[in-house]
Amino acid sequence: MARMVLPFLVSASDTSSSARRGALQTQHGTIETPAFMCVGTRATVTGLDPEDLRAVGAGILLANTYHLLLQPGPELFRRVGGIHRFMGWTGPVLTDSGGYQIFSLASDRTVREKGATFKSYVDKRTHLLSPERSIEVQTAIGSDIMMVLDVCPDSTADEATIREAMERTNRWALRSLAARTNAQQALFAIVQGGVVSELRRESAAFLTAQPFDGFALGGLAVGDTRAQREEITHSSAALLPANRPRYLMGVGTPPDLLQAIAAGIDLFDCVLPTHLAWQGTAFTSTGRVRLKRSACAAADKPLDDCCACSTCRRFTRAYLHHLFKCGEPLGPRLLSIHNLHHYLALMAEARDAIEAGAYTSFARAKLAAIDRHEHSELSLRSSSPDDPS
Amino acid sequence: MARMVLPFLVSASDTSSSARRGALQTQHGTIETPAFMCVGTRATVTGLDPEDLRAVGAGILLANTYHLLLQPGPELFRRVGGIHRFMGWTGPVLTDSGGYQIFSLASDRTVREKGATFKSYVDKRTHLLSPERSIEVQTAIGSDIMMVLDVCPDSTADEATIREAMERTNRWALRSLAARTNAQQALFAIVQGGVVSELRRESAAFLTAQPFDGFALGGLAVGDTRAQREEITHSSAALLPANRPRYLMGVGTPPDLLQAIAAGIDLFDCVLPTHLAWQGTAFTSTGRVRLKRSACAAADKPLDDCCACSTCRRFTRAYLHHLFKCGEPLGPRLLSIHNLHHYLALMAEARDAIEAGAYTSFARAKLAAIDRHEHSELSLRSSSPDDPS
Repeated sequence: MARMVLPFLVSASDTSSSARRGALQTQHGTIETPAFMCVGTRATVTGLDPEDLRAVGAGILLANTYHLLLQPGPELFRRVGGIHRFMGWTGPVLTDSGGYQIFSLASDRTVREKGATFKSYVDKRTHLLSPERSIEVQTAIGSDIMMVLDVCPDSTADEATIREAMERTNRWALRSLAARTNAQQALFAIVQGGVVSELRRESAAFLTAQPFDGFALGGLAVGDTRAQREEITHSSAALLPANRPRYLMGVGTPPDLLQAIAAGIDLFDCVLPTHLAWQGTAFTSTGRVRLKRSACAAADKPLDDCCACSTCRRFTRAYLHHLFKCGEPLGPRLLSIHNLHHYLALMAEARDAIEAGAYTSFARAKLAAIDRHEHSELSLRSSSPDDPS
Repeated sequence: MARMVLPFLVSASDTSSSARRGALQTQHGTIETPAFMCVGTRATVTGLDPEDLRAVGAGILLANTYHLLLQPGPELFRRVGGIHRFMGWTGPVLTDSGGYQIFSLASDRTVREKGATFKSYVDKRTHLLSPERSIEVQTAIGSDIMMVLDVCPDSTADEATIREAMERTNRWALRSLAARTNAQQALFAIVQGGVVSELRRESAAFLTAQPFDGFALGGLAVGDTRAQREEITHSSAALLPANRPRYLMGVGTPPDLLQAIAAGIDLFDCVLPTHLAWQGTAFTSTGRVRLKRSACAAADKPLDDCCACSTCRRFTRAYLHHLFKCGEPLGPRLLSIHNLHHYLALMAEARDAIEAGAYTSFARAKLAAIDRHEHSELSLRSSSPDDPS
């Protein structure tokens, strides 16, 4: 059943960059691109429910096949009719294949041509995650977009290792395509090749000859420098067909996103907004704010004056500081709401700027502002060296 | 400034018990009684925000002077204008005095006639919590109802110790009354005396001769049996004036509440619904449900078919089980919403039953149902001895 299933329409392109505005039509609604996917690894975006996600403007969620295979397992998804009904989310869902987790998390793993064998962290049972098994599990999960199982080499690996991983990823991509059984679920291939341009070119040439619904850039933001990442993102995006969505996996900070949109990337996911929220760090229009710092203790003002999220509308920095000082779970929850809203509002602004044909000046102004605030924050930090956090 | 400030109107009394229906008029709205106070010790009901609390039907919150004295401290409350603005809660707040915490939590404490000296768990500084200091801090917090500082003896103490604690509590109550400076904040006294009827009688006689806005029963549910607690609640409630609210501190389970309402109690607080939620246990119309149990793993149905809370309307037991198996914080949050809704709906039903003059039959039916479910649950438990949780 090797055919494309996901309609994708590019509706506007920026005149001075490769940035583009598009729409992906899934069974669970249209995704306006460029889009940021909120990370809901285990069928939950930590601490938030589907209503919270709708309120912050989330359009599409990302869940993870590796984690959901182990708990609750594909059989449960079959019984309840898929992830949307299970978690109460009616919008689109993309599932990562579990490739990255096999290589970064699993213990006692053995990778052969057939697939990866590993022990479950839930019940210590041995599982085989092959390209076919990953598609089978993603079919049970019922995601709108499935990802092929890929081989993720260590970012410090030598070129021979990266080539081997890329070539196996290509072979596994074909097996994934052949294994697809549900004509409603789209399938994306993953371009590998580390920071070696020639390998990226070979990988893209091989995969784009196949009827995948979209193409992801994998193996970035895993030890490479920001300059390398930007260079590979730009050169690889240009190798991908214009009429298919492009997804940059696991990236990144707001500047990373702004740069990648200029390279023509349509989809992103990153744990940063929620992970930093759980550590007490907020993204704001005037730079990052660490809520645990004593400077916030008596700050009787919103986290971000320019933000329309429910946290900024209702609570002060002083109250958020208090929650983090007490270790109260409402703190990370309110900050997750704010940080995701911050990311999703940035994407909405980017889409508007592309539509207005003004993306380059928009991105330049945003990057300059972030740079200025990060610089002023550094100055600020050195002037109060005794602040404990 | 020894005068009463809290208008309290008893609007209906049950014909076959001492149960009564009333309304307390505070600066932040009217509290319909009998009322259950959600416990927001550190100016937050763990994991929930004020909108969540309104959605579950919360009318009044309880916060704690001991914890708030240490973090964020009274100075911050003075700067931001009190707890309502600080935490974004517009309804009434009652503050406990910190007496119970001094005796149960504080290390390195010394209690003298003047007050209790203890070390802060936040910054190790030494604090004096005297009756006057507790009122001063509660004034800064800006609660609608303040509690006097009381002496809480160990529940296993001998009669001489309990008498000493009761007599000091009485002297401290007078000092608290004299220390009140804000005519808008009500002040409740606390009847002590353990499970010794004669001491309870002495304490009540002494305190009810003073112009307190209400009277609490303290020192129960701290090691006493359920029979002792019910007996003391009934006999002590009868010693309190009919035209003042009566508050049974720290109690209890739904059966405890149903019994105490029949004794004429108007106000309750208990950590049970939220504490059990964080442990994965739900109160339902068919008994307690432990979400971590394997019986819930594939239960594709709401937690409680009879419940109208947002958790039961949106999620299944299978999904809640999954969240608890993964240690995801959305699990305790959704269960806290459900458990508080369960308690608050029970209180609303009790108020309706009193108004209809049918409280005794209502309470009897509820107690019988709970008894039946607890019994069937016990049978169920012994039939599956290998269930790990």
